[in-house]
Amino acid sequence: MNEQVEEFRKVAHEAVDWIADYLADPRRYRVLPDMKPGDLVDRLAGAPPETGTPLGQLVEEFHQSIMPAVTHWNHPRFMAYFACTSSPPGILGEMLAAALDTNGIQWIASPAVAELEQVTLNWLRQWLALPEEWFGIIFDTASTSSLHAMAAAREFADPESHRRGGLGQLTVYASDQAHSSIEKAVVAVGLGQENFRKIPSDDKFRMRPEALRAAIEQDLAAGKKPCCVTATIGTTSTTSVDPLEEIVAVAREYGAWVHVDAAYAGTAAILPECRHILNGIEQADSLVMNPHKWMLTPVDLSAFFTRQPKILRRTFSLVPEYLRGTEDPRAVSYMEYGIPLGRRFRSLKLWFIMRHYGRQGVTAMLRDHLRWTSELDAKIKAHPDFEVVAPTLFSVVCFRLRGSDEANLRLFEALNASGEVFLSKTVLHGQTVLRLAIGNAGTTREDVNAVWETVQRLARTAV
Amino acid sequence: MNEQVEEFRKVAHEAVDWIADYLADPRRYRVLPDMKPGDLVDRLAGAPPETGTPLGQLVEEFHQSIMPAVTHWNHPRFMAYFACTSSPPGILGEMLAAALDTNGIQWIASPAVAELEQVTLNWLRQWLALPEEWFGIIFDTASTSSLHAMAAAREFADPESHRRGGLGQLTVYASDQAHSSIEKAVVAVGLGQENFRKIPSDDKFRMRPEALRAAIEQDLAAGKKPCCVTATIGTTSTTSVDPLEEIVAVAREYGAWVHVDAAYAGTAAILPECRHILNGIEQADSLVMNPHKWMLTPVDLSAFFTRQPKILRRTFSLVPEYLRGTEDPRAVSYMEYGIPLGRRFRSLKLWFIMRHYGRQGVTAMLRDHLRWTSELDAKIKAHPDFEVVAPTLFSVVCFRLRGSDEANLRLFEALNASGEVFLSKTVLHGQTVLRLAIGNAGTTREDVNAVWETVQRLARTAV
Repeated sequence: MNEQVEEFRKVAHEAVDWIADYLADPRRYRVLPDMKPGDLVDRLAGAPPETGTPLGQLVEEFHQSIMPAVTHWNHPRFMAYFACTSSPPGILGEMLAAALDTNGIQWIASPAVAELEQVTLNWLRQWLALPEEWFGIIFDTASTSSLHAMAAAREFADPESHRRGGLGQLTVYASDQAHSSIEKAVVAVGLGQENFRKIPSDDKFRMRPEALRAAIEQDLAAGKKPCCVTATIGTTSTTSVDPLEEIVAVAREYGAWVHVDAAYAGTAAILPECRHILNGIEQADSLVMNPHKWMLTPVDLSAFFTRQPKILRRTFSLVPEYLRGTEDPRAVSYMEYGIPLGRRFRSLKLWFIMRHYGRQGVTAMLRDHLRWTSELDAKIKAHPDFEVVAPTLFSVVCFRLRGSDEANLRLFEALNASGEVFLSKTVLHGQTVLRLAIGNAGTTREDVNAVWETVQRLARTAV
Repeated sequence: MNEQVEEFRKVAHEAVDWIADYLADPRRYRVLPDMKPGDLVDRLAGAPPETGTPLGQLVEEFHQSIMPAVTHWNHPRFMAYFACTSSPPGILGEMLAAALDTNGIQWIASPAVAELEQVTLNWLRQWLALPEEWFGIIFDTASTSSLHAMAAAREFADPESHRRGGLGQLTVYASDQAHSSIEKAVVAVGLGQENFRKIPSDDKFRMRPEALRAAIEQDLAAGKKPCCVTATIGTTSTTSVDPLEEIVAVAREYGAWVHVDAAYAGTAAILPECRHILNGIEQADSLVMNPHKWMLTPVDLSAFFTRQPKILRRTFSLVPEYLRGTEDPRAVSYMEYGIPLGRRFRSLKLWFIMRHYGRQGVTAMLRDHLRWTSELDAKIKAHPDFEVVAPTLFSVVCFRLRGSDEANLRLFEALNASGEVFLSKTVLHGQTVLRLAIGNAGTTREDVNAVWETVQRLARTAV
């Protein structure tokens, strides 16, 4: 063992220097790799490893073979999806968690995991000004968090479903801009895709409460029962914000669970000037917000909060003999509140991040990003060849070349092929639209300006 | 940024030295912490962090406040649940993955994530001698893998369930020794707890195929439809092995999906002399095996394999406009095969581990563990005051003091309170039983002997 440890010590020190150099200057890499599907598989193909290989040699191979296939999410010009940051305190937290490998499957399995999760999510709850009685739990991704919301909503609407299975009578509602994970959750928990209603959104991509009410009334008339309404605070395409207070009022009237998908924009609610986006939350039932998006946390860490932990627990609590633990009410066992039993020490990175930046550090970054996005929005609007096609609310701008979809697709391909930036595209009102998302802590105003210059330059040949 | 990077460089170097020292000598820690529920919460309680704190100071606080609440899963005398190892190549893989933060939500989002997952799971498939056409995908935990098996089984049994929701007519079977995650999956996907049958096991804790057949016949007579049979290869309490070939034969006759839960013992199938435990697998439909248990991998990494990826994909493929990618068949997007969209670069640690140890290194460790477990089994059987209460098949011994449950509970509490070892307990044939699991790569034959000495010593006061 000790020889292996000393080999690790040497290689891990080198890795730390490489990581620090990488964090100091990720710009030396293309954002997107220059490769064809299958290139890495072909490069690494071959028989499974029979004999061992020293760590140092593997790190060489990692740099030679694997790095050229990496998309650099931690690059300041990564502006696709929702941009994010693997921050130094987050990386440190992951290093220590990997070494300890402590797995909080129940309280005694690692009190640190169970209790630091309580401490950090309680802090996060306060940063978001959620009601004091809300319960928090960490899952891997927002898709998993929303799946748990859907299962709890099913239990809430029909406690018999736990025993007898879904009856195909429970209906779920979200706007036509909601994330695909909501529909996936409907399918996964057995409610059935044909019981999922995509409620039309308005010209600003927000759910129409009167359309929600009409859909519910229609379902009731058909003998269905409304089970869950998902409001999205910061939709994936345009970051639009559903009118939560009005949605909650409608849903409450019909007894449906309200789940709030704030996976991306929830972080903005830390800013007092943005907290209004969560107005109405105290009457909702659950919320998902992902620190691994805009809150400096390496993937994965999705924070799920609920006003009704007892419903969640009733859905998922099955404690077999080999996992019976202490009955102490302070010995929280998160396994009783969800599907995964294994529980990585994710709260450690969150603790390092929240402590290292403090609320002031996080809000300073958010305000920079909001300001630069707003500046970019103004520049695009002022340019005769471009248009902004959705309200710019947070750190994402949806824009397009005035012209054909083909021209926009050519521009999109040219931008991403340049290696200088990575943007996403989407379709709004039937038209192809480019999405530019700011969210990396290393991004500067100069980066945003430079990308805008590149967009204009490449647009001249794309038209 | 650069000041922060240099602060990280310094602190991360110190962390590497601490990690290496920890790996070289984890025995200086108690296995289980000496604390009461809530101690850590109380220690860290207080207002959420408002201002920032330097990394170095946080590492100090981590050592002072958090470490005393950690259960040391990476300790050679951690012998609870299924013991495991966070190996040096695994830790290195996690360090690099955290720094890159590359998230394989679709192929272009990070080709390295999509393709290294194919490469490593293809290797693992060959180590396990699974059929060539089986498809592999990584999830966080076995509970999540089995949830996906259950959803695919539902889709397989009733493709209409996707659309209409579960109808409460589909039945699921597993032995009374199956893991609670199977029942949780039944509830989660909406099949209903009362459609789950716990099939009685025999005197060696193996599912009885004739009891399975009888249960299926009874359900058919009641108008139900058999949907999924889960065979467990290495049950949680005793590591018993269900007779897979016979179970597959019964299930096939009735058209049910066969899921194989080999989360723990699947690793043993890498050994040619143990591969027979998977006999019959080619007729099964899915299998879960966790490298984060006995294959040197830091939590979390659960490998899910299926013969029927098309069914899995039909269940979970929903590709919204903002995620439309290339149509190239080699550009695999794992999001289409499951619930999570975010995809951590877990395959990187698996690549480091498989390459660093090779099959030879892994099998050498497994054979050591099997031999020491077998030796311990013989010693316990030779002792007049103790009995082994289940066949010792892999690296777990289930034993008890000949005497009352109370005496065994006192012994269990005394062992774990000593800080020298961590064992689990379970109940078999109505009696309290101690479980000792070997699985840490740092464990030596001397550790096993020393724990057995401690057991005997503490037993004298427990009776």
